[in-house]
Amino acid sequence: MAWTIDDLDTPCVTIDLDAVERNLTRAQDYCRRNGLALRPHVKTHKIPELARRQVELGAVGITCQKIREAEVMADAGIDDILITYNIVGRHKLGRLMALARRATIALVFDSREAAEGVSAAAAETGLVIGAMVECDTGAGRCGVQSPMGAAELAAALSGLPGLKFQGLMTYAPKGTTAPTSAWLAEAVAACARKGLRVEIVSTGGTPDLYRAREVTAATEHRPGTYIYSDRYMVAHGVGTLDDCAIRIVTTVVSRPTEGRAILDAGSKTLSSDPMGLEGYGYLLEYPKATLPAMSEEHGHLDVSACNARPTIGERVTIIPNHACAVSNLHDVVYGVRGNRVERAFAVAARGKVQ
Amino acid sequence: MAWTIDDLDTPCVTIDLDAVERNLTRAQDYCRRNGLALRPHVKTHKIPELARRQVELGAVGITCQKIREAEVMADAGIDDILITYNIVGRHKLGRLMALARRATIALVFDSREAAEGVSAAAAETGLVIGAMVECDTGAGRCGVQSPMGAAELAAALSGLPGLKFQGLMTYAPKGTTAPTSAWLAEAVAACARKGLRVEIVSTGGTPDLYRAREVTAATEHRPGTYIYSDRYMVAHGVGTLDDCAIRIVTTVVSRPTEGRAILDAGSKTLSSDPMGLEGYGYLLEYPKATLPAMSEEHGHLDVSACNARPTIGERVTIIPNHACAVSNLHDVVYGVRGNRVERAFAVAARGKVQ
Repeated sequence: MAWTIDDLDTPCVTIDLDAVERNLTRAQDYCRRNGLALRPHVKTHKIPELARRQVELGAVGITCQKIREAEVMADAGIDDILITYNIVGRHKLGRLMALARRATIALVFDSREAAEGVSAAAAETGLVIGAMVECDTGAGRCGVQSPMGAAELAAALSGLPGLKFQGLMTYAPKGTTAPTSAWLAEAVAACARKGLRVEIVSTGGTPDLYRAREVTAATEHRPGTYIYSDRYMVAHGVGTLDDCAIRIVTTVVSRPTEGRAILDAGSKTLSSDPMGLEGYGYLLEYPKATLPAMSEEHGHLDVSACNARPTIGERVTIIPNHACAVSNLHDVVYGVRGNRVERAFAVAARGKVQ
Repeated sequence: MAWTIDDLDTPCVTIDLDAVERNLTRAQDYCRRNGLALRPHVKTHKIPELARRQVELGAVGITCQKIREAEVMADAGIDDILITYNIVGRHKLGRLMALARRATIALVFDSREAAEGVSAAAAETGLVIGAMVECDTGAGRCGVQSPMGAAELAAALSGLPGLKFQGLMTYAPKGTTAPTSAWLAEAVAACARKGLRVEIVSTGGTPDLYRAREVTAATEHRPGTYIYSDRYMVAHGVGTLDDCAIRIVTTVVSRPTEGRAILDAGSKTLSSDPMGLEGYGYLLEYPKATLPAMSEEHGHLDVSACNARPTIGERVTIIPNHACAVSNLHDVVYGVRGNRVERAFAVAARGKVQ
């Protein structure tokens, strides 16, 4: 007997595997045509099988944010992992070295302090860890603040035992490919003046995935969300609703007023990441409905603009604002093709914040 | 050798067990003195051992929002559970009946449709499920819209096989005890005019926990957050920072500029529930620091107002805005007394959205 979405209890998360395949293939093709290595960030799916599929299709390796995510991926046989995080503190160094024994690991640094900690542990263990300089090209998060600062830290990394300086890494805001390109070119030149070879220049993000080649120095791109897409991407002109592989199936549990419908999916299901959008999701069956508020287990749907309105017990489908945050909330998601449920995936790397 | 908070990797969640005990005892005493039954909502902690402690101290039972949360609690021996949710749909009825075979279960309803579904399943199984009318006394979520509507649904519940009408339930916004009291008194009177005995009137929420007796008809209160408290409660005058048993221990991983420090805890650790507060948490060691932004794994700390400023590798402690959302993100939290770590708790009911 075929297992269909209607057989699933709600709320639940479905992933359309045909859409996933299309999204992965398109990105891989773009990178291949443009001479860029693709190193997907697995934060969007957190599922080892999907990471393996990304590598099968041509990714050079994967990106993780935390050591424990990388451990889950190494357990699944992924053997080339960039951890785009400043690893700091004695608690993490033992695990990091154990991980580096079984996979090729590179890290990013924006300070000499962080690099020295990892260097000492690696040198003591006889391991070599790839080291990149994290550059703040405008996102205002981590990263050295200038191309000259990048070259200075690159020189420091090159001089530390147990580290192998590989290049530069940034996560740039959407629409900043031109200034990012200038910033990174200047940093590469500054490194060259110090006699340092910049082997890798790694950029990130799905919003500018298909403009990655505009950053002339880039050799590698690290998109995450492209595998599932989400309402944020569609709102910013990156793909269409059909590209959104991730959906939340919910049930209307209450119709307290003419204009209000309450769904069984709230912030525990959809996340309350604001993402600068109006409302917390897009309703496939009722495009004029809005989701202006949630509590933990309830979605507060405003259906006053809809002609036909949902009834108690009806199932409705949401495209979430932020795919990555949804993945992090769920132990299991369902791989589907159209209405057919093909398999359940354990979201093995969810909740790995260390 | 003693195990201290300094031995824990970051980010991690600690729960001060002395503060928990004080918070639980104070609420239990208040309810006892005021003739109210206490039925804690376990959504805040999601930990069976803490639910058992609440019952040991005198709670009449617990409150859950979803069937799968209730299953976890029943597994741990909790035998009296109110599920404050409109249970709708065939997928849930089998599990609900299995649960009702091993624990006393009551539900809330705000529609005849939802009640009829449960009634049919209960009658067929030969079980009796407690049934309360959910009342919208101002929160604008679920619930019948008027005292008369409450009495009408109460009459319907009373006539349905497999259900035992027990009373009225509401979750009222903070500071609305007077109108809520009037609403519920009118609903009780309307029920009485129909010959219906209202055995239980259940109110909820920590913000008005210590004003629960102001709702004159109330027989029971269902606070959740009181066990841990959080920054939201303190901001709204409910207890002090010392009452906050839940804390996030984090490490400064980057100091990209004079005024910016980056923590290893972001929205995956703290949740991005807005809660109407400025910033995403309170920093114990740097009260003048603010946390205006986060990404999934980074907290973006503004330390420009601080005289002393944190350095890379330093550990800092956050009181989160919303305790319940934090619990839902973590598989494990640590029970501590002061700096000593006493045990790890599995957050067994986290992620149970169905």
